[in-house]
Amino acid sequence: MQTPMTYIDPIVIILALVALWFAASNFTSFKRFVVGRPMRTRELNSRHNKLFWVIALPVLAADLYSSVAYGPEAGITEIANLGPDIKWLILPITGSTVVLLIILITSYIMGVRAYPNGGGAYAIAKDNFRQPWVRLMASTALMIDYILTVAVSISSGVEQIASAYPRLAPHVVGISVLCLLIILFVNLRGVSESASLFAWPTLFFMVCMLFLIGYGFIDGGPHGVVSAYTPPFGTFPQSLTLLLLLKAFSSACSSLTGIETISNSVPVFREPRTKGAIKAYVALGVVTGITLLGFSSLLYFQGISVNPNNSMLSQLLGVYFGHSIIYQVIIWATFIVLILAANSTFTGFPQLTALVAGDSFLPRALLMRGDRLGYSNGMLVLSALATLLIVGFRANTNALIPLYAIGVFVAFTIAQAGLVRRWLRVRGKLWRTKVIVNGFGAIVTAVVSVVFAVTKFTGGAWIVLVVLPLIMFIATLIRRHYLKLADEIRINPTDAKPEPHHVVTVVLISGVHRVTLNSVSFALSIGSDVVALYIGFDDESIEKMERRWEEWGNPCRLVTLKSEYRSLINPIRRFLKFLETYEGGQADHVHVILSQFLPSSPWAQILHNQSSLLLRTWFLWNKDIVVTTVPYHLGDSGAPRH
Amino acid sequence: MQTPMTYIDPIVIILALVALWFAASNFTSFKRFVVGRPMRTRELNSRHNKLFWVIALPVLAADLYSSVAYGPEAGITEIANLGPDIKWLILPITGSTVVLLIILITSYIMGVRAYPNGGGAYAIAKDNFRQPWVRLMASTALMIDYILTVAVSISSGVEQIASAYPRLAPHVVGISVLCLLIILFVNLRGVSESASLFAWPTLFFMVCMLFLIGYGFIDGGPHGVVSAYTPPFGTFPQSLTLLLLLKAFSSACSSLTGIETISNSVPVFREPRTKGAIKAYVALGVVTGITLLGFSSLLYFQGISVNPNNSMLSQLLGVYFGHSIIYQVIIWATFIVLILAANSTFTGFPQLTALVAGDSFLPRALLMRGDRLGYSNGMLVLSALATLLIVGFRANTNALIPLYAIGVFVAFTIAQAGLVRRWLRVRGKLWRTKVIVNGFGAIVTAVVSVVFAVTKFTGGAWIVLVVLPLIMFIATLIRRHYLKLADEIRINPTDAKPEPHHVVTVVLISGVHRVTLNSVSFALSIGSDVVALYIGFDDESIEKMERRWEEWGNPCRLVTLKSEYRSLINPIRRFLKFLETYEGGQADHVHVILSQFLPSSPWAQILHNQSSLLLRTWFLWNKDIVVTTVPYHLGDSGAPRH
Repeated sequence: MQTPMTYIDPIVIILALVALWFAASNFTSFKRFVVGRPMRTRELNSRHNKLFWVIALPVLAADLYSSVAYGPEAGITEIANLGPDIKWLILPITGSTVVLLIILITSYIMGVRAYPNGGGAYAIAKDNFRQPWVRLMASTALMIDYILTVAVSISSGVEQIASAYPRLAPHVVGISVLCLLIILFVNLRGVSESASLFAWPTLFFMVCMLFLIGYGFIDGGPHGVVSAYTPPFGTFPQSLTLLLLLKAFSSACSSLTGIETISNSVPVFREPRTKGAIKAYVALGVVTGITLLGFSSLLYFQGISVNPNNSMLSQLLGVYFGHSIIYQVIIWATFIVLILAANSTFTGFPQLTALVAGDSFLPRALLMRGDRLGYSNGMLVLSALATLLIVGFRANTNALIPLYAIGVFVAFTIAQAGLVRRWLRVRGKLWRTKVIVNGFGAIVTAVVSVVFAVTKFTGGAWIVLVVLPLIMFIATLIRRHYLKLADEIRINPTDAKPEPHHVVTVVLISGVHRVTLNSVSFALSIGSDVVALYIGFDDESIEKMERRWEEWGNPCRLVTLKSEYRSLINPIRRFLKFLETYEGGQADHVHVILSQFLPSSPWAQILHNQSSLLLRTWFLWNKDIVVTTVPYHLGDSGAPRH
Repeated sequence: MQTPMTYIDPIVIILALVALWFAASNFTSFKRFVVGRPMRTRELNSRHNKLFWVIALPVLAADLYSSVAYGPEAGITEIANLGPDIKWLILPITGSTVVLLIILITSYIMGVRAYPNGGGAYAIAKDNFRQPWVRLMASTALMIDYILTVAVSISSGVEQIASAYPRLAPHVVGISVLCLLIILFVNLRGVSESASLFAWPTLFFMVCMLFLIGYGFIDGGPHGVVSAYTPPFGTFPQSLTLLLLLKAFSSACSSLTGIETISNSVPVFREPRTKGAIKAYVALGVVTGITLLGFSSLLYFQGISVNPNNSMLSQLLGVYFGHSIIYQVIIWATFIVLILAANSTFTGFPQLTALVAGDSFLPRALLMRGDRLGYSNGMLVLSALATLLIVGFRANTNALIPLYAIGVFVAFTIAQAGLVRRWLRVRGKLWRTKVIVNGFGAIVTAVVSVVFAVTKFTGGAWIVLVVLPLIMFIATLIRRHYLKLADEIRINPTDAKPEPHHVVTVVLISGVHRVTLNSVSFALSIGSDVVALYIGFDDESIEKMERRWEEWGNPCRLVTLKSEYRSLINPIRRFLKFLETYEGGQADHVHVILSQFLPSSPWAQILHNQSSLLLRTWFLWNKDIVVTTVPYHLGDSGAPRH
């Protein structure tokens, strides 16, 4: 679906504003309404009812299986401009991805046996490589691909819908962002309900695809299986180079993304869970392989061409069923499964970033669970970055594909290599076979990764190859910072104990009124050594202040300073320097009390506190000074609570 | 000067970033470098050496006199598309603005006599109308026109330069913004040096214009005075309507803006200052009138046409001097005087907003003087809004003109009406004549204001007619807020005196480490009733905390709370509720101590304090709780200062 690149969809802007507003309204009742009741930690462990493998399969299959909808098309698109003679190449290209699928599933079955508690690439790398950069690379690559999964799945899903309803074509970006926001909201509400519910659409989509393939081969529809439209087989145009073939293969491999999901989720299966997971892997591999081969064969037999405004799936459905109800149902099923694939990433990505943040590679804020026990910050980061990709690439699946799958294959390679190291270390039954299987897998995925990087480099892969090391570098800096900090604040409990110090409390006042009454009262409540500080811009105001202070009965010492430069900072700086030497430097702590007006409406903030905010920041950053803010709520009532 | 509307000048973006950076770098030495040494308040009164009227005249004339460069052209542009037959109309149109000039100067001389301490429209309105909306209207109208003066003067100045050097034409927006920034910087440095220095360019420009007119009439140059190019006189095309004529007159009246400057600045004159100001007004009126009539006559005699890429002044100079050195000198003199006109606004606007802010109609922040004694905030606001206009209208003078001058004439009307009320009240010598003069002035300017609003409504005046009441409405809300506040915080010093209260201090801690040591030490220093509060997400961490606290020798009471919802806010809310009833509600103040990490580099901020910031905001906004922040500077040294 190509839309003009200069077109900025107003719907996108509106939706972005809504998202911003949502992100900002952390404490409104709206959040409670949208996000739902908070959940207790203990619900975390009980919320997955362990699943029988037949049920677990569709639950975990959405990510991998949904990509059949765009994989073969992405492959053939790369060479489509060489003319109709190359249409037959969809068969060998898809065939080789199926071979790769078999290798990967075999490798992953090994992984499941080794890590029955869930062995993502990060866990395997952490267990088998001492060097932190290996697991960091695996996690970064996966993070990038999770973000791309969301962008590609949603874009492809919306593309299917726009193929069916061409009127929607100019709005694909807006619709994609809307879908993303809905997924985000559902996930901020928590995913407990979703798991088993999500099995049915995937199962239904599998049935639809198998029905389509069966219908095409058995009944044949209006054109039979091999029809008048079937292009010649086995011709090689002069302009077809090996590089182009490899490029097509790389893009077609996007249909293999999501294969790691089952291995991450072994604990979801009912006992014996390893066996259940293996059965699910075998079944999923068989179904996916049949679908890929059957679907691409039909595309070839019916001579379907690449059309940016009509997906190949939609065209094929059109050949057999026209725009009938069957066409509509299958298109919508495809859309829903693609959205579910994006949805599953909203569980995987935040879990991964929390794992990585726990390892100090990412900001700790990613470890904070939201009210509904999801890692809300991770979800917000994922949504923001995926939105950026969708808007930046105008929700164009084929433009996003070159960035995709490199990350996954890098992570695959690291996981396989990690397993090889494990077998070499642990040995055990049949360890030589296992080393050979995973070693072969590692080599194949490594080669495929390099092929991806080379063939798709100019198409967009360079972005990933720049971003990946950049994130790794930043993550290393973050980790170094946290480790240094932990080292710096560590104390020996028996050596360093809290002791009271002599504190001088300075109350900044602007006159004799209720706000000053408030803050001076507080200062008198907590310390004996209280100084009220008034900064006047002329002698007149200083004299007036001193007179009024006298009238007030001198509640504490008053220091008045004249600021001829009309700056607040300079006289305060001089006064603090004076305090440091005052009474032989007995003031261990200097403590400044500021008032802050809190108007009842936030817009009124701009009318107050400009100097208070300035001073607070300056004190905290430039001096080792404790700053206390005494709030003064305006308009609540004549007199504050105390 | 028309540039394509879609063209976004990269120079504008860069300059905007520079301005942003400058605005943000309040405390860097860079500011000291650019803005110069701070000035003492007492320098304020001595910095104007009182001026003899002959010197004061050019100092105060830039604003009015510079507008002759664009006024006649703006008028004739409105009817230029009716063909060359209407060229003669530049004479009656400019003639009627000169009549208006005479009326206004007579009225203003009355004003100067009445308010020898400087009588701007705001001061006159405040003195003569009890209703605050009248002076608010006058000040708002003037503020809008000050902003437009900056935008129009700079755009017109750059237009003159771009007429001389067509290569600069694509960059007018960038150059205009650059000029604006330079003016801003100069003014942030303080205007003390500028006053008398600025007299010379204006004087020089006057001489240049009078020389041009004299040269045109006496020598006549290559084409004589009345040349072959002189269009017919006195023909009325069918398509010429009264509305169009009035529209042309409205636009030509932009050459009258700035007439109020002398009346605002009477105190600048050497004694007898009223007489000096009147002499200056008469002289300025004569020179401006001669220039307007002479310049427009030459434009007519030489048959100069409107050309968006070459100003009429530049064309006329071209006719007489080619692109010789005389041409260059006069063009640059025009440019400099127009820039000076914009510069003079940088004194007027902040003084006006400070006056209005002192009256509580605008945020108090506009009252704060910067280090160099100028009202820096006002200057920044003026620059920001003028930049918006320049960029929004692509530095196109003729597009800005329809917005211009309405404000000034509204303010003129209010000032004249105020004077009428004054004469009726005060009476005195010749009061009847004065009432007639100012009454006539008020009626004329009121009519002109209405003519402006009607004829230029669709051309852009509607923007002003929307913005003016909007600002007035907001200003009324601001004033109501401040008055309510002053009322709310007022106390009787003998009734309400500061008293110490019972304070419960709650220290939020996250473990036993140096940061906790710091904040617990501070808490123990200031209060006897200290509670350390730890929020754990599971039993394990809570048990560990309790054990370590024991090892630490129980520095104060420890309260541990388990947050099953993993929220920090909820358990704290419950704890505060408990405190309110604790010991029979003796805790008058609840005082919370938070730690804030201050990393040595600002980017590391994102790695810390997310929860601390969240909590601080929540405490201040939702509860009447005093919040103390104990800074912990990372990386400065192993141990903090205390």
